[in-house]
Amino acid sequence: MINFIDVCKDTPYIRFLDFYKRAILKKQRNIEAISISSFNDNRKEVESRYVNLKYIRDQEWIFFSNYHSPKSESFSSHKQISAILFWESINLQIRIKAKIYKTDSDFSDYHFSKRSLSKNALAISSFQSKPIESFDIIKDNFENALKKKEILTKRPDYWGGFSFEPYYFEFWEGGSNRLNKREAFLKDKKIWTHSYLQP
Amino acid sequence: MINFIDVCKDTPYIRFLDFYKRAILKKQRNIEAISISSFNDNRKEVESRYVNLKYIRDQEWIFFSNYHSPKSESFSSHKQISAILFWESINLQIRIKAKIYKTDSDFSDYHFSKRSLSKNALAISSFQSKPIESFDIIKDNFENALKKKEILTKRPDYWGGFSFEPYYFEFWEGGSNRLNKREAFLKDKKIWTHSYLQP
Repeated sequence: MINFIDVCKDTPYIRFLDFYKRAILKKQRNIEAISISSFNDNRKEVESRYVNLKYIRDQEWIFFSNYHSPKSESFSSHKQISAILFWESINLQIRIKAKIYKTDSDFSDYHFSKRSLSKNALAISSFQSKPIESFDIIKDNFENALKKKEILTKRPDYWGGFSFEPYYFEFWEGGSNRLNKREAFLKDKKIWTHSYLQP
Repeated sequence: MINFIDVCKDTPYIRFLDFYKRAILKKQRNIEAISISSFNDNRKEVESRYVNLKYIRDQEWIFFSNYHSPKSESFSSHKQISAILFWESINLQIRIKAKIYKTDSDFSDYHFSKRSLSKNALAISSFQSKPIESFDIIKDNFENALKKKEILTKRPDYWGGFSFEPYYFEFWEGGSNRLNKREAFLKDKKIWTHSYLQP
């Protein structure tokens, strides 16, 4: 599930919330799974990974990560990303382009304080995406962190939120014979322009 | 379903085929849905979209598209992409980085000749991703193309395959408490290097 906080009232957001309700009614699983693609301008490489979208607050779409991870490096080097959701239950693809930045630290603190201690133990004990000799060492590090109750509620400075603000949406509904319905919204100077796209 | 033709025998391919079989046994839907992310070097923008992965032939992963589409422009401007599969039935994410190029035209001809006439009518009648006034015009264009039987088996030169050859794989298996198993394979001078990554 995604948590909604004072969500923006612009047309693409209304469209998004309508599709979200339809997907929930169809019991869409992993509805918060979103693929985030970035460009690492140092290595000139596109990279993608799934994250859990935790909040939409006004126009800010928020997920959490390790700030020393490769994706964090990519977001610093090129501050634009693409995101994509696919809700099979309603055969809908949502394509997004957005600007990305670090979430304010108060909000990251708030979210960290609400999480389970076991998730926090993992966030604290893992050097995300760094190589390691075996999976057993990962489990040991996690078990050791879990014993240190005093550190499990204080957010480490290397962990927090990323917020992205979409300036482009495409809602793609699959149809028979590839007659897919595609509607796009592009934001320019605070105004959203709508268009239909050929399939 | 993905069609396999003389698939490469390297370790990450063996791993891939093993996961594929497990997902098929779990009746994974849309198993061929893959998100392709590209960088448009003219507009300095990352973009993502789902496509259907049709073939893996040796080390070539093949899908089909309009060659005048925005993604085709991106692939020309920056010849590296990322791709991502998520098979919920086995809680597996497969992250790929690859080089991309146009599939040889004989293979595109072969695939076009095997497709249904209705899919070909859509491929011929649609100027993919170009704006249009309404969805009704799209349907009219499609119905008109469908009547011209003589053109429906000849591949137009603006439609064909894209092949990408992975040089990086990550197999990400979701675990409890975010203790995810991550294994990476990186290819350098024809040799794959294996590592475990921290979650």
